[in-house]
Amino acid sequence: MSHSAQTGTLQVVGMGPGNPDLVTLRAARILATAKTVAFFAKRGRPGHARTIAATHLNPAAEELRFEYPYTTEIDVDDPRYEPGIRTFYETAAGIVAARLDAGQDVALLCEGDPFFYGSAMYVFDRLRATYATAVTPGITSMSGCWAQARLPMTHGDDVLTVLPGTLDSESLAARLASSDAAVIMKVGRNLPKIRAALQSAGLTDRAVYVERGTMQDGRMMPLASFAEDRAPYFSLVLVPGRQRAR
Amino acid sequence: MSHSAQTGTLQVVGMGPGNPDLVTLRAARILATAKTVAFFAKRGRPGHARTIAATHLNPAAEELRFEYPYTTEIDVDDPRYEPGIRTFYETAAGIVAARLDAGQDVALLCEGDPFFYGSAMYVFDRLRATYATAVTPGITSMSGCWAQARLPMTHGDDVLTVLPGTLDSESLAARLASSDAAVIMKVGRNLPKIRAALQSAGLTDRAVYVERGTMQDGRMMPLASFAEDRAPYFSLVLVPGRQRAR
Repeated sequence: MSHSAQTGTLQVVGMGPGNPDLVTLRAARILATAKTVAFFAKRGRPGHARTIAATHLNPAAEELRFEYPYTTEIDVDDPRYEPGIRTFYETAAGIVAARLDAGQDVALLCEGDPFFYGSAMYVFDRLRATYATAVTPGITSMSGCWAQARLPMTHGDDVLTVLPGTLDSESLAARLASSDAAVIMKVGRNLPKIRAALQSAGLTDRAVYVERGTMQDGRMMPLASFAEDRAPYFSLVLVPGRQRAR
Repeated sequence: MSHSAQTGTLQVVGMGPGNPDLVTLRAARILATAKTVAFFAKRGRPGHARTIAATHLNPAAEELRFEYPYTTEIDVDDPRYEPGIRTFYETAAGIVAARLDAGQDVALLCEGDPFFYGSAMYVFDRLRATYATAVTPGITSMSGCWAQARLPMTHGDDVLTVLPGTLDSESLAARLASSDAAVIMKVGRNLPKIRAALQSAGLTDRAVYVERGTMQDGRMMPLASFAEDRAPYFSLVLVPGRQRAR
């Protein structure tokens, strides 16, 4: 492999929370001129980042579609999970690297903000030392959700904690208790545990459930009114901080 | 006052972290067609949100410029500070309300994301119950900074805590110790205290100082290499989470 001045640049591009008009001008320009775009997708699905990009994308662009090896078929605690995912990212990075070696720039799309829990980091992490890279931030899913909910999150000196719902209930409750505002990501099947942690921290009444925020089929309601025991992956719980401090 | 169907809508619009091409398509469209825009500015300064908006703004738009009554002349701990700031926001809300009552939409601009420590919330908070409102999220300053620094912040199940540098050193250290990743806002003159908290949490070597991220005169470096004792208000300290988890 030659990594001369002619190698391409890896452009990691945030696509924002879901609505195509929440893409940045820079991202739209990259999409309109991209010759090669890469993105992740679940098996049989178009891919969230690709869906958001659709109206902006150069129709002649080559598309590198990386399909996750599993979504729920293998549990994240299963010993086969991590090696399989590592192999998947390793393969994706290799395919991107081949384009970069050939002198082609690659726009790697990522929903939300790429460096905030984004899958694109696992390709970036593998290629950053070898290739020129540039990162276009995007609006996070949480910003999209709290704007849609018209829920001011952090005023003044509020502490905000972003918590994965995968933490155990006691850790969740302790961190909720030491924060003014909180966002709980990866709700999914962790919902009963999250409810218990919010209850224990005395925050049930402030919690808002947001599903597929900024998307057309999105919905939101006080968590206390959401009767189901399981939520989709693209859902969040928002606990706004102190209100109307001034 | 009549709040009939003819009253205007308050559009709260995030302008992103500083670079005009990190504005969203939606925000650019609102700016291009706005008849009245409002924004905050420090005395004698053009205003950050207004500066970011400049290239996108309808040149015929009426501009409502709200100048903060003080920046550093009165300390935030001074008993005169809070009443003065409250009067300032009350007055600004009244001026915006008068335009809304006259049937005019008002685009209230805010740097970064409006509901993430944004001044625009103090006007929104006062008007939300009475007028139609819409909120356009923006890229936060922290996302702009970590993208510019090419610093992946949160992988997998990392906990991210956003901390105002105004907290006391022990609170800062305790919260840093219970997080995987952290962002410290409002660095300014709190820098020595922030350094002490990072030292005490054993995080000095991971901390990155970012000043005016995404702006043309921005700079960034390991915090350990930043020799000064005071930083501008628009600076952050980033402590990235676990790296290369997969």
